[in-house]
Order: sequence, then C-alpha cells, then structure tokens
Amino acid sequence: MTDQRIEGDLPVTDAASAAADVPADATLLVSGFGSVGYPKAVPLALAESDRDLSLTVVSGGSVGAEIDVELVEADAIARRYPYQARAPAREAANDGRMAFADRHISALGDDVQFGGLVDPDVAVVEAVAVGEDWLVPSGSVGHTPAYVDSVDSLVVEVNRAQPRSLAGFHDIYRPDLPPERDPVPLSAPGERIGGPRIEFDPAKLTAVVETDCRDEPYEFRDPTETDRAIAANLRSFLTDEVERSPLFADSVRLQFGVGSLGNALMGALADADFGDRELIYFGEVIQDGLLDLLDAGQLDSASATSLALSAAGQDRLFADAERYAEDVVLRPADVSNRPALIDRFGVVAVNSALEVDLYGHANSTHVDGSRMLNGIGGSADFTRNAALSILALPSTVGSDRSRIVPMVPHVDHTEHDVDAVVTEHGVADLRGTAPRERARLLVDRCAHPDYREQLQEYLDRAFDSDGHEPHDLDAALSWHE
Amino acid sequence: MTDQRIEGDLPVTDAASAAADVPADATLLVSGFGSVGYPKAVPLALAESDRDLSLTVVSGGSVGAEIDVELVEADAIARRYPYQARAPAREAANDGRMAFADRHISALGDDVQFGGLVDPDVAVVEAVAVGEDWLVPSGSVGHTPAYVDSVDSLVVEVNRAQPRSLAGFHDIYRPDLPPERDPVPLSAPGERIGGPRIEFDPAKLTAVVETDCRDEPYEFRDPTETDRAIAANLRSFLTDEVERSPLFADSVRLQFGVGSLGNALMGALADADFGDRELIYFGEVIQDGLLDLLDAGQLDSASATSLALSAAGQDRLFADAERYAEDVVLRPADVSNRPALIDRFGVVAVNSALEVDLYGHANSTHVDGSRMLNGIGGSADFTRNAALSILALPSTVGSDRSRIVPMVPHVDHTEHDVDAVVTEHGVADLRGTAPRERARLLVDRCAHPDYREQLQEYLDRAFDSDGHEPHDLDAALSWHE
Repeated sequence: MTDQRIEGDLPVTDAASAAADVPADATLLVSGFGSVGYPKAVPLALAESDRDLSLTVVSGGSVGAEIDVELVEADAIARRYPYQARAPAREAANDGRMAFADRHISALGDDVQFGGLVDPDVAVVEAVAVGEDWLVPSGSVGHTPAYVDSVDSLVVEVNRAQPRSLAGFHDIYRPDLPPERDPVPLSAPGERIGGPRIEFDPAKLTAVVETDCRDEPYEFRDPTETDRAIAANLRSFLTDEVERSPLFADSVRLQFGVGSLGNALMGALADADFGDRELIYFGEVIQDGLLDLLDAGQLDSASATSLALSAAGQDRLFADAERYAEDVVLRPADVSNRPALIDRFGVVAVNSALEVDLYGHANSTHVDGSRMLNGIGGSADFTRNAALSILALPSTVGSDRSRIVPMVPHVDHTEHDVDAVVTEHGVADLRGTAPRERARLLVDRCAHPDYREQLQEYLDRAFDSDGHEPHDLDAALSWHE
Repeated sequence: MTDQRIEGDLPVTDAASAAADVPADATLLVSGFGSVGYPKAVPLALAESDRDLSLTVVSGGSVGAEIDVELVEADAIARRYPYQARAPAREAANDGRMAFADRHISALGDDVQFGGLVDPDVAVVEAVAVGEDWLVPSGSVGHTPAYVDSVDSLVVEVNRAQPRSLAGFHDIYRPDLPPERDPVPLSAPGERIGGPRIEFDPAKLTAVVETDCRDEPYEFRDPTETDRAIAANLRSFLTDEVERSPLFADSVRLQFGVGSLGNALMGALADADFGDRELIYFGEVIQDGLLDLLDAGQLDSASATSLALSAAGQDRLFADAERYAEDVVLRPADVSNRPALIDRFGVVAVNSALEVDLYGHANSTHVDGSRMLNGIGGSADFTRNAALSILALPSTVGSDRSRIVPMVPHVDHTEHDVDAVVTEHGVADLRGTAPRERARLLVDRCAHPDYREQLQEYLDRAFDSDGHEPHDLDAALSWHE
C-alpha cells in the first residue's frame, strides 16, 4: 500500500487485529496529551473485544473517551498512570477498581524508561505519517518519544483527520541517560533543536492502523465575571513585577495551567501593558487564548507539548497550520516541562488549585483530601521551578465553600513553592513572608469577604498556642468532609 | 598591613567598628552553611552593642551561636532566612518574636538577587584570605557568591583559625541571570569549572576584620542499633537497585541528608557491595562518614557546599587538607543543590524526615504541624530531582510515638517525590503504587510492629469510604497534638 502518510512496506492492518495481538495483561504506553493526539481505534477495539483484559495504561497526559471512558467501562484497565480527566476513569480510581497513580509530567519519561514504574510492553501511538523507522506525531508529542524507545512492540494509528501539516509544529529532542546526560541545548523557548520525526528500530513496528477520526478535545466555557476579576488582579501584579525585576528587562516568559480559567487568563493578557517587552509562552499546552494573542501579534513564540485546543480552536489552527507553526513549537513533555529549562528561562508560572491554606500550601488534586480529580499533571513542574510562581483561583466554590481554608487536607504544592496567590478579591504576595504574615495576607487580600471572619477566628484560636505555623489540629480540617 | 591572608591596602578594622557601621535595621547577608564558615566577630559585636537592632539576617544554611544564639538572645533579629538549628532561634521563630521563613537552598541565591525576598544591604562573610577584589571562603561556600554580588557593602572576617589550604576545596561558578541563563557546564560531580576566589567590585569592601576562632560545628552521636538496622535495609535495597537500573551501570551517585543518621548511613556504605562501580557523592554537606569512605579508597569524589564536620573531623581534614582536596570540591549552594545537576547526574538521594504518612507524604520541619524544627534546607532539592528518592528514618520517636502516621500535619515532600521509605523494619518501594497499595506497604514493611494494628484500623475505617486516598478526616490528625 502506498500513500503519502504511510511510506514503505509497513504492516498495515485493522484495529481489531492489532488489538488482538495485545496481551491481556499488557502494559500499554499510549500517546496523547491535553486530550489530543491519543490513539482511538485500537483502544476502542480492545474495549469492544470480549477478552478478559487487565491492562496497565500509561499515557502522556489526558486522553480521550476511547481510553478513559470505553476501556474503563469495559473494566479492562487494572492500572493507570499518570493523569485522567474523564468521569469513568475518575470514579474507577476513587472507588479503588483501578489502581491509579499520578506523577509529575516532567518525570514520567524517565520513570517509564528506567525508573522502575512499569515494565513496558506495547506502545500505541497516533501519528499523521509513518515510515519504516519513523513516525510524525499528531496534535501532541507528550511522552511518545520515551514510550516508543521503551517498548518492543509498536502500533501506530495513522489518522487522516489530523492534517499532515501538524509535522511543522514538532521539535523532537531526546535527553540522554544520566549520569552522562547533557543539558538540553535550548537557548530560547521558541528555538528548534530537532526535527518532526520520532525515530525507532524498525523491528518494533508490529502494526499500522489507518483511522479518520477527530480528537474529542477540551471545551472551554466563556470567561465569567470572576475569571475577569482574577485576570485583572493578575495583570496588575504582573505589570508591577516586570518593572521591578531585572529578569523581565526585555521579555516575559509565561506558562498557564490547563483549563477554562487558564485559557481565560491567557486571553486576558492581550490587555496587559508590558511596555515593549516580548511576550513568550513556555508551557505544556497551547489553548485557544494563545491563538488570540498570536493573531494579535502580541505573542512572540509559544512552546508546549500539546495543541490542547477546543474543536473551534482546532479548526482555526488546522486552516492555517503553516503560519501558526512559524511561532509555535511542540516538544516532548520531558522537554516542555523540564525543571532545568523552566529555571533557565525564568518562567512566570500561573496555575490554578482547588484550595489554598492559610500558610500557602495548595491542594490541586484531592477533593476533601480523599477524592482524586485529575492528577497533579505538570502544575508542580512549573510551580516549583518558575522564577515567579502564582496560583490563580476563585475565592469560593459555588456559594457555600471557601477555597481559602485553614489547612488543606492534601498538599500538592508546598508553602516553599508558592510565591503569590490571586483571587477575584486581590493578590497576596507571599514572598519573604513568615507563616503568620502569610495567613493575614491570604485572609485580607484573597479570601471571600463572607469567610474572612471565620478564618480570622481560626487564626486567633491557633495563634493562642506557640508555633511557627500555629494550627488548632482539632479544627484544622473541619472545613472539609 | 601586610599579611599573606590580607593582600593589598584594605580597610582593616576591629569588629566593634565594623558592627557600628551596620545600620540598625539592615538586611545582613551572612556566609555559613552546615554550621561552618559563618562570620563570628561582627555578629558577636552586634549582639554585644547596646543599640536597638532590628536586623534581617539571611544565611546560606545553618550558622553558629554568634548569630542564632547571641544575636537572637539580644533580640536583634527581626527577620531570619532560610534555616536555623539552634534552640534560641527555633524558640524565637516558634513564639513569633522572629519572623522566620524557610526556603529551598537551591532557590535562595536567586531569591536574594532578584526574587523579591529581601532588599540586601550588607554582606558579612568569613574568609581564609582576602584581596582588593576577591576573597577565598573558609569551610563552606553556601550562598556567599550570590550575597556578595547583591550588596553595596561587604565586610570580610579573615579567620586565622581556618587553614588557608581550604582554598584548595573551592570551585566558584556563578549562574547567569534568566532568560539567558546557560546550563552549568559541569559534566561530572567531581569536575572543576571555576577557581577558589569569589570576586567583587572593590568599592564594596568596607571592612576587613581579623579573627582567630574555630567554628562551633556539628556533633554526631555514635550510630545506634536502629541506625545500623536502617543502614542494613538501605544497603540491601540499593544493592538490588544498582543491579536493576541502567543508570548505575558504571557508578552510583549518592546524596545524604545532614545529621547523625545521615552521617551513620554514609559510613555504613563502606560495607556495601556495588561490584566495581565507582561511588560518587553529590550532595550539600561533607560529613565525617564521607572522610571514612575517602580514607578507605571507596569514594571516587565528593561534591558539596560545606565541610560540615565534627571538631574531630575538622582536625582530621585540616591536617591533611591538600590530599582531601584532590577528591573533594566545595561549590556555591546554587550549584551543589541545583535541580538540573541532580537530574543530570542521576543522584540517589537519601534524606530523613520527622514522619511519613500512609500515602507517602513526609513532614521534615514542623512537630505536630505547628512547631518548626530547623527548616526544609536542601532536602526537597534532592528529593524532588533525584533519579531515586529515599526517605530513611526510625519507625518511632522514643518509645511512644510512631513516625508512620495516618496523615502528616505538615507536608514538605509530597507523595509524588518519595520513591521509597526505609526504617529499621524494612523497605517500602512506593514506585508505581496506587495510594491504597502504598498504605499497606508502609504499614507492613516500615511501621513499628507495636503500631501496625492501629494503623490498619485507621485504614479499614478510611477504606469504608470512597476515595483515591481515603481518609477519615475526624481521626486523621488525632495521632498528633
């Protein structure tokens, strides 16, 4: 079979046959990040088979319904890493049916390759083109290069619904193995140091499956009044900070977390006055808000591992891929999220959280300390290593719950990594503050006025005892449950 | 005045005069790390003056009694960063008299230089020699290069009690400013990329004070039976791991935390059988245990930022400094603890903790969640970025308290960063485990037998509810207080 997307004499087959060759207890490494670029046909064929499967599934980041709905509902996934964002997967993790463990995105490639996380069997990855010893990923790179390196058996889904021009976005670089690991030779976020192809040993390629199926991507809600108020506070804080610090003399390098709020905050930067500084994005996902900045000529370049766009955003990008690819680079997730690069570029990281406590610890993953939402994803990669780490979140959930709480019942980001907290009510700049000062700032500047008195009462009681971070352990978690 | 330690026509003066020039509300950046290499005479003169002082004191790491006892007891420190290890400083932090904030060691140089932490005024640093535009640090490098860069006024204490031969250990390299920050060009832990001198603008040098006073360094207790049992479990786990992972084909790069347990674990490695692999140390402190390994020819090289030796260890090193300096390098703390280097060298990090909870979160700093012990120091720099992160700790405190607890009331290291936990009872390898699996491993392998039943009861009750990390929030913190 010859085709511009399948070059050479490759083992083209159908999804059911490829699925049938996957051992029932295989460890499957799948492409996909930001809900795009994940394999569709083979997972679906696995879900629809009547075999008794007990798979371990490792993705790059979040993937689509074929994996985290269909395969989960078929009870075919025994073990799942490192992130999920669909209700059935979440439920299976929370009721203990599926052994789920989340992990920093930046660490996952190493984990899979030599970290003792799993014993990899088969990689199933989506591509826009494949040859005897190479493939070109589709809408995300994620950890596909590390996964392809780790397995003996590789199944490639070539998806005609993904434009071949996506190749123009990819910049594939593979970090060496420690202890001879060289620094990633990237001197600017928008620079290119590789090519579009992921290369592999041709003996690995066991099946090529043709598909024609769009991703089921994110949906972003329109910005709310609260989103806009948070954005205004963030903008004002950043405007002061870029004037203050020599790090931002010529440019500002930004990262935003995944989701509707992150998307709204990206978009809102269009109104920021950073003088004649270049605006550069160095994050893990490109969301619709960034396309607006690119179109307005306000963004110099953008680096990420996934085009995590809405369906409308995909249409917009696909229609003009060549132009967008001039300024947008997709990298492997162990490059996009690499601590060393986040440090070297002096990134300003803006991520959300479920809740923040009075001493600046943040919970991003576990509702009431017990129930997993999605996973830590790349939020800690950026929050820990950024030159300036900001958590931006609404002050309440619905009308009856504060997101500023006495003590978070699960910590994903410690006090040592959170520089500032922004809500619709204001900004608490926590840098250099002792814990008691931090608590007062968070109550006065960030908490919703309806909860300030209760929070202050908690503090008054806690401050009665000695302690660097005084707590009343009897009451500390009483805001949860 | 001419002297081989003071070269050129320098503003030599006495400590009282130098202290008198320090503004009463100055931000003082002091040398010192691992309780060695800190300035002595000027802090003491400040403590003994009858001025009403309200200083901000930023050290590299832990310092001696002149600062954290005398100055604190004189009520002269209003604000203190980032680490303290003496009772008076601890008490002042805990009762709120002194605004203390701890911070990752790796981040502190950047924080002080451009991170908005403080507005630096005067640096007071200890040296073994000084010239018009250079100084050679004494027993630690710490953040002295960054601090000297940050201030307008520099006071140097030249300490004759510190051998001039300490110069042979130092390798001073200064990271550039983001976003043009180059990777640190270090390709092996023992390599040298700088020289012994910290350079500065000669206009900064306001005073040189001569002293002759030993450090008041660490005291290590002899290894206990528990220490030896922990060491045996650690050795056995590491022996398997170096066989398993391709990272350790030729060498093993280790870091150990500060303290008597860390010191005992270092020493106990002498009995490990790592085949013909090179043993290399890449950490933040050189403790006595490493000298044993060096003397036995078992350690290829050691990189750190401080010679945190006991008085006997100092005598031993000072007597033979030239020989030890062949294999030992002291670096600035933003090099010794740099996340990028810990990653590139594939370090195995072994640190202690106060307690670990059933899902793998660790508390290293706050007794009962409230009372600060010392600070996070460099423990998270290594735990987060190591190829293999191990927490090693006794299973109990005294005879009536478990260090494996349902929920830690303060988190310094999250579940995402702890690969394995070692106690005198065994090893829990947490890699790839879901939280419920992790809990069972920690109870069965690491907890003291006297507490296993109570921990299991907690889990049984918690597992009654749904949740990825099921907790009974009413009881979660009941083991504390």
